[in-house]
Amino acid sequence: MENFILYNPTKLHFGKHIINDLAKVIDNYGKKVLLIYGKNSIKENGIYHQVKVQLKNINAEVFEYGGIKSNPVVEDVDAASRLGRNSNVDVVLAVGGGSVIDSAKIISITIPVFHSAWDFYSGLKKPLKAVPLVTILTLAATGTEMNSFAVLQNHKTKQKLGWGNVMCFPRHSFLDPQNTFTVPKNYTAYGIADLIAHCLEAYFGKGDASLSDKIVVSIIKEAFDNGPALLNDLKNYELREKILYASTLALNGITTAGRKGGDWGVHDAGHILSLLFDIPHGASLTIVYPAWLKLMKDRTPERIAQLGKELFGVNTSDYTITKFEEFFKQIECPVRLEEAGIGKEQRQQILDTMILNNVSGMNHKLSRDDLSLLLDLMEK
Amino acid sequence: MENFILYNPTKLHFGKHIINDLAKVIDNYGKKVLLIYGKNSIKENGIYHQVKVQLKNINAEVFEYGGIKSNPVVEDVDAASRLGRNSNVDVVLAVGGGSVIDSAKIISITIPVFHSAWDFYSGLKKPLKAVPLVTILTLAATGTEMNSFAVLQNHKTKQKLGWGNVMCFPRHSFLDPQNTFTVPKNYTAYGIADLIAHCLEAYFGKGDASLSDKIVVSIIKEAFDNGPALLNDLKNYELREKILYASTLALNGITTAGRKGGDWGVHDAGHILSLLFDIPHGASLTIVYPAWLKLMKDRTPERIAQLGKELFGVNTSDYTITKFEEFFKQIECPVRLEEAGIGKEQRQQILDTMILNNVSGMNHKLSRDDLSLLLDLMEK
Repeated sequence: MENFILYNPTKLHFGKHIINDLAKVIDNYGKKVLLIYGKNSIKENGIYHQVKVQLKNINAEVFEYGGIKSNPVVEDVDAASRLGRNSNVDVVLAVGGGSVIDSAKIISITIPVFHSAWDFYSGLKKPLKAVPLVTILTLAATGTEMNSFAVLQNHKTKQKLGWGNVMCFPRHSFLDPQNTFTVPKNYTAYGIADLIAHCLEAYFGKGDASLSDKIVVSIIKEAFDNGPALLNDLKNYELREKILYASTLALNGITTAGRKGGDWGVHDAGHILSLLFDIPHGASLTIVYPAWLKLMKDRTPERIAQLGKELFGVNTSDYTITKFEEFFKQIECPVRLEEAGIGKEQRQQILDTMILNNVSGMNHKLSRDDLSLLLDLMEK
Repeated sequence: MENFILYNPTKLHFGKHIINDLAKVIDNYGKKVLLIYGKNSIKENGIYHQVKVQLKNINAEVFEYGGIKSNPVVEDVDAASRLGRNSNVDVVLAVGGGSVIDSAKIISITIPVFHSAWDFYSGLKKPLKAVPLVTILTLAATGTEMNSFAVLQNHKTKQKLGWGNVMCFPRHSFLDPQNTFTVPKNYTAYGIADLIAHCLEAYFGKGDASLSDKIVVSIIKEAFDNGPALLNDLKNYELREKILYASTLALNGITTAGRKGGDWGVHDAGHILSLLFDIPHGASLTIVYPAWLKLMKDRTPERIAQLGKELFGVNTSDYTITKFEEFFKQIECPVRLEEAGIGKEQRQQILDTMILNNVSGMNHKLSRDDLSLLLDLMEK
């Protein structure tokens, strides 16, 4: 193993009607609450109402910032931070999926300062304090509810970057599987793809960590065992809870213990597709992963084959790659660029933006030639 | 799944020479340090010296309490707490195995009060604050380095009890596999048995939690895969690190997510054997577990068989029980009372003490008749 730190101070509240514990938790931090959310879906499915009831129970003063985009942008984060700063809020409450919670993390560290949130991403500034953050998750996917990372995009600089800091851990995250019932089939599938991708990023990180390997396999198995059934039964509580918990564990630190973090080359590349064509994050990953595995087939054949052995009982890299691609197809995710409506005429723009964003991978570094090969494999 | 909270604020520092980061961590809390340890083994193997060098680097004022017993007693905890209180210490630093760290947890909450630590165990008092606790682990076994529990015994009341409180989480725990090199073969085996027992306690807790099941199986597999090899190669770093990390994960909360905690009936019974005959904790568990599994064979046959299927590929409860008993024998742990020198003439005393201590189990409750049957099976 590599030397490692295992640290995760987020308190996860998981289960049916768990939101009933929200008021007490918020009240520990204060009465002035900055409420962050995305589209109006939380108003339609009743979650917004439940939250407001909890906040009313403690006579909270609520400042709202809605409209966070599904690929969140720095402009929203800066505007919400101004609202929080001017209102002198005690706590930030994020209600939504990955984009809302990612934004709220950065809002919570931007409220105390007087510069753009992007200065953290560019490395110009370091966060020194954070307003406490509480989250209510409505989508099983990114794992952001129990980690310190956030992805943000900046259209001016043509960047979509992941970044993290210990200050960004939510203090509490509330996960009720019922809150994911109204997620449509396609986004449920993208979430399943995302959690599997997180496991793979961990698995292909640097370092020999046999127990973390076993845990990666456990989480992927959980997704394989329950994902397809869930897509045919979207309001099944037991299946929703299994996928929801799997998505949290897939990126809360437990998969990379004993490694120098994960690889993240596929996520880097996927972010470019989302940045340029606004395609959902999970869908970008199902396009990139099969291509990346094929590119890596001769570079790390034993690792790919070992994964297949544990998951499918067959010890060859070709079979492993085929099974992953088949699974992504089975859950109706795109596995080639053209299935996401991206034509060959976009190739140069994709490549240029990948290079501008330093798309690479922490362990299996990707050269410019590799990125070109990766694009070939995404087109084939 | 059952509703659950997943929360663990301990920061784990794991790896070779990780103790070099100790000075900086201690200095964050202050200069007055209460150093807790057990026997003189840490002086013989050099760990004591390394710690003192780190503390000297920050000009710390060190107050020492050594001599914590391997089955720790409330008298030591109360005496060390007085020392810490009178010296107005800023931080407690525990260097040792489970008994030392368990004691230090209770010391850290007893320093701020003016009553015996046992008042927490008896339920008379609740802790309101804690002196920050940092630990350096020297034995892979109990998992105490990353949880909020502590076991303590009181010979006056004839009790050995486990108890926990959120205030008892260590702030930081330092785990260098090299610090476990000098643990002798028998205690290394008891530690392996202990971590497996923790996984089993979780597995037999109340609730259906498929991903936690998979993680339990992963950790037991890690112990089965590497434990016997380690016993023949006690200074092998890679094997020590695998067992050390497995022992931490076996009781840091990740195995019981989605359950109402674990069962703990076997631990309850094992504690009685340690209390009465001072036998090592891990050895008490390898005597009780085979008997308990046999007692449960008709009560929860599917769960036992399922465990065997995942671990050994054979789906019967008899085979599963045999394999666990064989493993405990293979690592040279006792599996019957007489192998630990406990004769039939002790039977009534054991039974009476079990009843006095309310030995039962949280999920699979044990009646007085069950305890008698359990003793039969430990004798056979």
